[in-house]
Amino acid sequence: MSNSNPSSFAGAIPLEQIRFNEQGLVPAIAQDYLDGTVLMMAWMNAEALQKTLETGEAWYWSRSRQELWHKGATSGHFQQVKSLRYDCDSDAILLTIEQIGDIACHTGERSCFHQQGEGKQAPPANTLSGLYEVIRERQRNPNESSYTCKLFAGGDNKILKKIGEESAEVVMACKDDNPQDIASEVADLFYHTLVALAHHNVDLREVYRVLEQRRH
Amino acid sequence: MSNSNPSSFAGAIPLEQIRFNEQGLVPAIAQDYLDGTVLMMAWMNAEALQKTLETGEAWYWSRSRQELWHKGATSGHFQQVKSLRYDCDSDAILLTIEQIGDIACHTGERSCFHQQGEGKQAPPANTLSGLYEVIRERQRNPNESSYTCKLFAGGDNKILKKIGEESAEVVMACKDDNPQDIASEVADLFYHTLVALAHHNVDLREVYRVLEQRRH
Repeated sequence: MSNSNPSSFAGAIPLEQIRFNEQGLVPAIAQDYLDGTVLMMAWMNAEALQKTLETGEAWYWSRSRQELWHKGATSGHFQQVKSLRYDCDSDAILLTIEQIGDIACHTGERSCFHQQGEGKQAPPANTLSGLYEVIRERQRNPNESSYTCKLFAGGDNKILKKIGEESAEVVMACKDDNPQDIASEVADLFYHTLVALAHHNVDLREVYRVLEQRRH
Repeated sequence: MSNSNPSSFAGAIPLEQIRFNEQGLVPAIAQDYLDGTVLMMAWMNAEALQKTLETGEAWYWSRSRQELWHKGATSGHFQQVKSLRYDCDSDAILLTIEQIGDIACHTGERSCFHQQGEGKQAPPANTLSGLYEVIRERQRNPNESSYTCKLFAGGDNKILKKIGEESAEVVMACKDDNPQDIASEVADLFYHTLVALAHHNVDLREVYRVLEQRRH
């Protein structure tokens, strides 16, 4: 589970500049590296931050247990660090991570931030990922009046015909060099492509994973 | 700058359940509602949280000034709240916001988390937004060996031809019902669509904005 090149984080955070609070702690936010979901917020002391930089895995300070906490040591849900940043006041850390097992929360939820009002509501990631979740929900709970459900009902031939049509409309909007039309037609193309992904049970994050792999 | 329906947040956070620390504060993370960028982390006391719920704009407690802080009151950079969540321990808040002026940080940067090592590095949002930034960077600083730069050099006719080709490949991969090919071809289609957007100076967030508007 160790990062292949842990030393790449050695200079990511200048430890001596970080302003730990009166308990010697700094808040650390962990964010999914693919879709941007905020998975959890925990605390680091200098040793936890140092170990995170050294190992490429997230270490925190458990305030309840008053001990160093190698996230995942018990659950197997390690967090592999992709990048680290600190804020303008040097008193908060942002980790971009790959969450092993896709579960960050001790309750078994993906993100600790799943509570809204009296109920549960998965946190938003970004617009495209949020839209994909809505499409998945329509797929699980069909509703005759929904356009998305009509597409699913028509199967590949209906969905893929729309991909052909919308991609042609992107081409035309670009040829017209009309920014509003381009944004609108790309939105249409993305939406129908997400429906095709859902229809074939391919997660949008698999697409993101392919794109991430190509960058390295 | 007020939310049109502030009462919609009234029950989003059960105030009596929130565990404020010994200073009466709880950390609050503000995340962009379109691309998922973590913009800042600040602190709320009960009154700031109450005002945020009532007004639909973010209020914090300034620890340095020891006073309530209506974010944007001085700078104009208000934060309009789209959703609020709290974590499993009820001791951290996640706000999804529209950042007016697109600047959250007092330094003028978009996000407070712009520091990495000794330099500046904008925080990642999600894979697609990150890829769009890379494409924009190639556009600003062309490099003959880069495929992206070759596409830009070929202009619309080269870029749009690829959109036609990649959309046809998505159609074929779906017809073959091959999940790996589907993810890979959708990745290709998204990438070339981002190049088309950049070529026409249309921000990916404009596409996200169109998609968000359609959801309401």
